[in-house]
Amino acid sequence: MPIKAYAADAPGAALKPFEYEPGLLKDEEVEIQVEYCGLCHSDLSMLNNDWGITEYPFVPGHEVVGTIAAVGERVTTLEVGQRVGLGWFSGSCMHCSACMSGDQNLCPTAEQTIVGRYGGFADRVRAHKEWVVPLPEGMNPETAGPLFCGGITVFNPIVQFDIRPTDHVGIIGIGGLGHMALRFLHAWGCDVTAFSSSADKEAEAKELGADHFVNSRDPESVKKIEGTLDMILSTVNVDLDWATYMAALKPKGRLHFVGVVPNPLSLPVFPMILGQKSVSGSPLGSPVTVSKMLEFSTRHGIEPVTEFFAFDQVNEALERLHSGKARYRIVLKH
Amino acid sequence: MPIKAYAADAPGAALKPFEYEPGLLKDEEVEIQVEYCGLCHSDLSMLNNDWGITEYPFVPGHEVVGTIAAVGERVTTLEVGQRVGLGWFSGSCMHCSACMSGDQNLCPTAEQTIVGRYGGFADRVRAHKEWVVPLPEGMNPETAGPLFCGGITVFNPIVQFDIRPTDHVGIIGIGGLGHMALRFLHAWGCDVTAFSSSADKEAEAKELGADHFVNSRDPESVKKIEGTLDMILSTVNVDLDWATYMAALKPKGRLHFVGVVPNPLSLPVFPMILGQKSVSGSPLGSPVTVSKMLEFSTRHGIEPVTEFFAFDQVNEALERLHSGKARYRIVLKH
Repeated sequence: MPIKAYAADAPGAALKPFEYEPGLLKDEEVEIQVEYCGLCHSDLSMLNNDWGITEYPFVPGHEVVGTIAAVGERVTTLEVGQRVGLGWFSGSCMHCSACMSGDQNLCPTAEQTIVGRYGGFADRVRAHKEWVVPLPEGMNPETAGPLFCGGITVFNPIVQFDIRPTDHVGIIGIGGLGHMALRFLHAWGCDVTAFSSSADKEAEAKELGADHFVNSRDPESVKKIEGTLDMILSTVNVDLDWATYMAALKPKGRLHFVGVVPNPLSLPVFPMILGQKSVSGSPLGSPVTVSKMLEFSTRHGIEPVTEFFAFDQVNEALERLHSGKARYRIVLKH
Repeated sequence: MPIKAYAADAPGAALKPFEYEPGLLKDEEVEIQVEYCGLCHSDLSMLNNDWGITEYPFVPGHEVVGTIAAVGERVTTLEVGQRVGLGWFSGSCMHCSACMSGDQNLCPTAEQTIVGRYGGFADRVRAHKEWVVPLPEGMNPETAGPLFCGGITVFNPIVQFDIRPTDHVGIIGIGGLGHMALRFLHAWGCDVTAFSSSADKEAEAKELGADHFVNSRDPESVKKIEGTLDMILSTVNVDLDWATYMAALKPKGRLHFVGVVPNPLSLPVFPMILGQKSVSGSPLGSPVTVSKMLEFSTRHGIEPVTEFFAFDQVNEALERLHSGKARYRIVLKH
């Protein structure tokens, strides 16, 4: 049976109904009946071929929640009807040093759900069994999609760098990623500072879990908290005065990037040496870290703040995302 | 009894004999009878007031080895006659979070041996008891001085970042610091790559413990080892193509700076994110890490490669250091 999807024919084009024949299900693959699919900024970047790697017709969608429709011959750990999610990665080699060390998200040949294949803006989508992660009992499937890309992107560094509940953590950018980071870190027990250029987000940031609010574009405000933070997580895609943010870190602090900024970071080395500070980045997370995030989110009642659109309103949804007005993630539903 | 030292009257001036009255020994201080004192590039920088913090008359010297000449009233852990060393730091508050966490080298008010006080180019010098570290039995006191500044600078990151014997580590710059890093990392059991712009150092780098040698200024040679190193330690004070070095790291790898480079680091964020890579810096080490280094060095027979000058040849020694020809550290002896 052909898969019914939404595809763009060319960079920036509107999405239109599109059907394709998926062929035989591979031994280690599962097919998901899509119920919900989140919209992510990288869907837009791919749609516009910003990274030069998009193939057309292009089917976006990599924040999928649905139920298992079929399993390949060698799949014994998932069963038809089970509710699952799928994110940016749809497979990895499972053999390289990264995969065998539990860092499947760092596999150099990992398959990406919407790169060189068709994504989740469709009635069905396929992926390798280990990248299809069951939703825990009690999790709301309507809002879970964005956790599989935006959520894990900010949850993963908390795990990777062993953030502790006694830590003071800053989040730069209170948007699709940042608002989830506020919720995670609040539930993690941290002291949380929200950095945002939108003063009107202060009240909402505090509701989401921020203890403090600082104007991200005002170096004077950032200077006031010099030496107070253990970690700063940047989710923005604009250039800021990174040296000032580094000064906001305590000794041994870390400035961590999950958002791609336009220009290379310009970092003076002397303060980094004096304070034993680190600057780093990370992509998404492994399937095990995704599972931990889902369990933690369910237990703490953490959901992304979402707006819903029907699948046939996909172009309106993309426009809404593009406008920057979405609060904070958009989910398409069948 | 006055202390007989060598001091400069003005930036860049020759050192001349200089006497000063040290006053009463403080309760927690010890006085060291100087036997040897290493010369370090930061002595030159301070002599020239490169950092704008030098007070004149200026007495350099912060790689001291000698014997305890006197102890303050509250010193019960060191005794007169014991052989000890003193490095860049001569005291710290012992109360702040850094000090109380064992990171005394990150104390924001740490006292520096040659900043606002007189250093070790003298017959005697004083310091707080905890920053005066005993030499282990069997350590050669003649060559131990440089371990207290140059040595600990490169040993400390190995400890701080938990470098393991299975790791592949690169050292940029085979000079005063880098040659000690080669010896430490070889004894640590690592696979060691020396990066140097001096092709004539290859044979010597390999004798010092390098398994591989790469021309640090040739991006093509650095590109050949893409994705192979767990950590790269930069000891140089020149700007290099840091993005290429970052590409030489494995996923989760770290580019670490102990040398101050002239310009801010320019680092593209995308490869940092994709590979979960870190960039960091660190200064010297705590007294406990210094002790570990001394014990490890003694057990493995690790000594800095040194040239000796008599104290009254101090100006010739400084000139030799300035020329860049010293192989690799210079020690003054009484």
